[in-house]
Amino acid sequence: MGARLFGWGTESGALSSAEEHALVDRVRPWLAVTAPVAAPTLPEVDLTPPRLAPAGALASFMGSDPLARATHTYGQAYRDLVRRLERRFAPAPDLVARPPDEGGVVATLEWADAHDAVVIPFGGGTSVVGGVEAPPDDPRPVISLDLADLSGIVEVDTISRAARCRAGTRGPDLEAALAPRGLTLRHFPQSFEFSTVGGWLATHAAGHYATGPTRIDDAVESLRAITPRGILETGRHPSWGAGPDPRAWLLGSEGTLGVISEAWLRVVARPTFHARLVARFADLDRGVAAARAVAQSGLRPANARLLDPLEAVVSGAGDGGTALLLLGCESADHPVDGEMARLGELAADHGASFSDGTRPDARWRDAFVRAPYARDVLVRAGLLVETFETVTTWDRLDTLRHAAVGAAEDALAASGSPGGRVSWRLTHLYPDGAALYLTVLAPARARDRVGQIDEVRAALLAALASAQAPVTHHHGVGRVHQPALAASSPELATAVLASAKSALDPHGLLNPGVLLASSRPGRGRRDSVG
Amino acid sequence: MGARLFGWGTESGALSSAEEHALVDRVRPWLAVTAPVAAPTLPEVDLTPPRLAPAGALASFMGSDPLARATHTYGQAYRDLVRRLERRFAPAPDLVARPPDEGGVVATLEWADAHDAVVIPFGGGTSVVGGVEAPPDDPRPVISLDLADLSGIVEVDTISRAARCRAGTRGPDLEAALAPRGLTLRHFPQSFEFSTVGGWLATHAAGHYATGPTRIDDAVESLRAITPRGILETGRHPSWGAGPDPRAWLLGSEGTLGVISEAWLRVVARPTFHARLVARFADLDRGVAAARAVAQSGLRPANARLLDPLEAVVSGAGDGGTALLLLGCESADHPVDGEMARLGELAADHGASFSDGTRPDARWRDAFVRAPYARDVLVRAGLLVETFETVTTWDRLDTLRHAAVGAAEDALAASGSPGGRVSWRLTHLYPDGAALYLTVLAPARARDRVGQIDEVRAALLAALASAQAPVTHHHGVGRVHQPALAASSPELATAVLASAKSALDPHGLLNPGVLLASSRPGRGRRDSVG
Repeated sequence: MGARLFGWGTESGALSSAEEHALVDRVRPWLAVTAPVAAPTLPEVDLTPPRLAPAGALASFMGSDPLARATHTYGQAYRDLVRRLERRFAPAPDLVARPPDEGGVVATLEWADAHDAVVIPFGGGTSVVGGVEAPPDDPRPVISLDLADLSGIVEVDTISRAARCRAGTRGPDLEAALAPRGLTLRHFPQSFEFSTVGGWLATHAAGHYATGPTRIDDAVESLRAITPRGILETGRHPSWGAGPDPRAWLLGSEGTLGVISEAWLRVVARPTFHARLVARFADLDRGVAAARAVAQSGLRPANARLLDPLEAVVSGAGDGGTALLLLGCESADHPVDGEMARLGELAADHGASFSDGTRPDARWRDAFVRAPYARDVLVRAGLLVETFETVTTWDRLDTLRHAAVGAAEDALAASGSPGGRVSWRLTHLYPDGAALYLTVLAPARARDRVGQIDEVRAALLAALASAQAPVTHHHGVGRVHQPALAASSPELATAVLASAKSALDPHGLLNPGVLLASSRPGRGRRDSVG
Repeated sequence: MGARLFGWGTESGALSSAEEHALVDRVRPWLAVTAPVAAPTLPEVDLTPPRLAPAGALASFMGSDPLARATHTYGQAYRDLVRRLERRFAPAPDLVARPPDEGGVVATLEWADAHDAVVIPFGGGTSVVGGVEAPPDDPRPVISLDLADLSGIVEVDTISRAARCRAGTRGPDLEAALAPRGLTLRHFPQSFEFSTVGGWLATHAAGHYATGPTRIDDAVESLRAITPRGILETGRHPSWGAGPDPRAWLLGSEGTLGVISEAWLRVVARPTFHARLVARFADLDRGVAAARAVAQSGLRPANARLLDPLEAVVSGAGDGGTALLLLGCESADHPVDGEMARLGELAADHGASFSDGTRPDARWRDAFVRAPYARDVLVRAGLLVETFETVTTWDRLDTLRHAAVGAAEDALAASGSPGGRVSWRLTHLYPDGAALYLTVLAPARARDRVGQIDEVRAALLAALASAQAPVTHHHGVGRVHQPALAASSPELATAVLASAKSALDPHGLLNPGVLLASSRPGRGRRDSVG
């Protein structure tokens, strides 16, 4: 986020004191909670002295301000929240750079190279996988490179419907710039308010509009990235047929190959026709079957997700006994009622009953958007709250789901939190499979809470690996999933990625330890440190 | 094709003598044609002695049979047809391998490496860009690796709707295996009858079903490739979020990084609902605008392509005065009449009139499928017949179209063929742009016909480069477009591709000169040659 010492988003977005109490009271019958502990304040944050000081023009946008360093230390994983609450800021970067333009990014990379420092690109700071955190085992000084000022829409092509967007642009700013032209990107990850275009592109972000063009990847015409070897910019191409797609090197590269500085993204006309439907399933398996029928219908609802009964009730959208399939259709061109009627038929074919008109989908969406704020409170109240996600084909989904939920529940109990709860939903539906999203909620053990989540994660990732499901669907790899990715990736895929890294970042400046194991490339003596 | 010394497809598919005469007579009023010259026969083919002989088990599937060598010398570009007619087979491979299984592919690569030979993967042999031709400037012996016997569907997952397909499977065999299960891949490139799954994947093949999921890439769950460094196999993933997508290294790699041996491809239920419409436009620009409206409607017709008046009349689908927009919708789940009605409204909004019921779309499709056979006759009758294609955004399409058509016309005239014709169509529509497909038809000059097409191509590629349009949309790069690709690619994109090549094919065995400039990697002395 780069703004608060603890907590999602903004102070004004956070729960009020009354809302905090209400939330904790609501959870208490289910799980043991304490009164929320206080968030850290700056005087409580103990930072080691920075090992580098910027010189000359760089000093205008790079420095070692303690608040900047502390707010660029972590992302938004549970382990990040815990370490903040424990006043542990040891991984703080030595310096935070906030360049005003691409020239400043280039200068930062050059200066980092000359001083043998590590550079960690920082967009919205909403990573939940350790994607913006300094490498624990690298002796080099660390610069957090905040792209907030590379912001805005530079150009809009209303004929082709595409917009040239700078990497630091946050969701609401992007939409505000498109709205007067009747356009929208229609990309709504949960972090929409705070995450950035560059962060989306670097992490294969997937949106709330969750069938059809799910990923930001689907919107990419061109990419521009600043690498230690120079600028890599692709042309604007609706489709690419001339060899392996160079855009694919950068999409999902998580800041390890270059600093994405801008992109041409496809946009669409703002929808004027809408239809929504909530289907309830007493039989969870039939709900899954209905989700599959929807995904394989050839219709592409703008929204389609399945909540298990626990997920539904926790978010306030369900009654605890039924699974919910949330459906939404939209178009700027034509009415979508026929499409929605057909989706309703498909759900009914699988035993759905339909909502009573009290709009549980809206309740669910509100809960979805405010979930990170609520999580802050629950973690302060002593709960372990974390999410995990993966993807698999329909034929393997049931096995995976039972294995993953079971592994997480067992690991919670074994790690000292009996009685934890694991809920799940299908967040993104594809014709051939779905993304499985797990929420883990338990009273945290008293000591070594980071160790506890590491234990739970290890058990869960082992279950995913057994089911040949990847370590992530849309949260990314970061440092947290890197070892499991390395263990499950084909050896030659890792070799190719490492070769691309060598081609673009030969000295290994960029986000070492993310995606690829951190290995200091040899480059002779260090030019200077400190 | 790997079967005929000259000519597309099969003997039985070729035009009859009567059809040949009729075709030539039909063209004569437009363009000077001769009586078709005879295709070469094997005794007329003069091959140099092979420089290598396979030993042991390899000899069971690898050899230097003259017919096999001659039929694996070229693809199906105009320059390939001309060289065949001129009885020039100098680039013939020394050996043709047709391994029965993956083990045979591995053995071929190992043997080639040990003997310092080049390996050229060969699927259907339908490349029109020199993708299956020996490098002219490489001293190494050449093995053409025909994957025809790695054929068939190994597994079908009817739950997830995906099929595990071996690389040598041709279109009709694939569809025949899927049909009993009610499934279809719905991928119909013009070469469908003869091209293969592996060839499609290696070249970003794009189908006749030309909006929405256009490319074979869109169907890929997993890929398996045999590289000189070993097997690279990805998991089956409906979507990928864990770093740069390893499938993207191989898609479009044109045999330079590995030999794709199989893939899990997404399939769909066979459509049962259909609707077709042909819209006519007296005003070509309004036809383009209608195509754009269709592409940006959010509807995804299974077919949508725009023919210019000349293209329409040549294929027998038009009257010469109007452009045609061919539209098709289909579904296995729901009626598509409403969708088609809306597409018709969009066309009408742009001034369309509608077909008289004589089904010009069917005429066009027949012409499309038989076009390669007709081309054989026209080339034998002394015509230059070649196609070029690219893609651009809608805002740049008009400029590109005029520049490309003008450049081709001027180059034809300058190269000795005044009065040539250049027609065009939009073969693939995207929300943000379209693929522009040009057909060049002219009396060939008498001497150096290969030189003539090289001149025309150079002029056309220069026009594309000026308009920042890529060298290809779906024909691929091959040897023919490689220099222009290198000139127009970002330097760092080429560097990354070269690094991937080094990681997977360190000795540069695979298809040197395709995609990347041919450069013999140093590897000490040659182990043995001949």
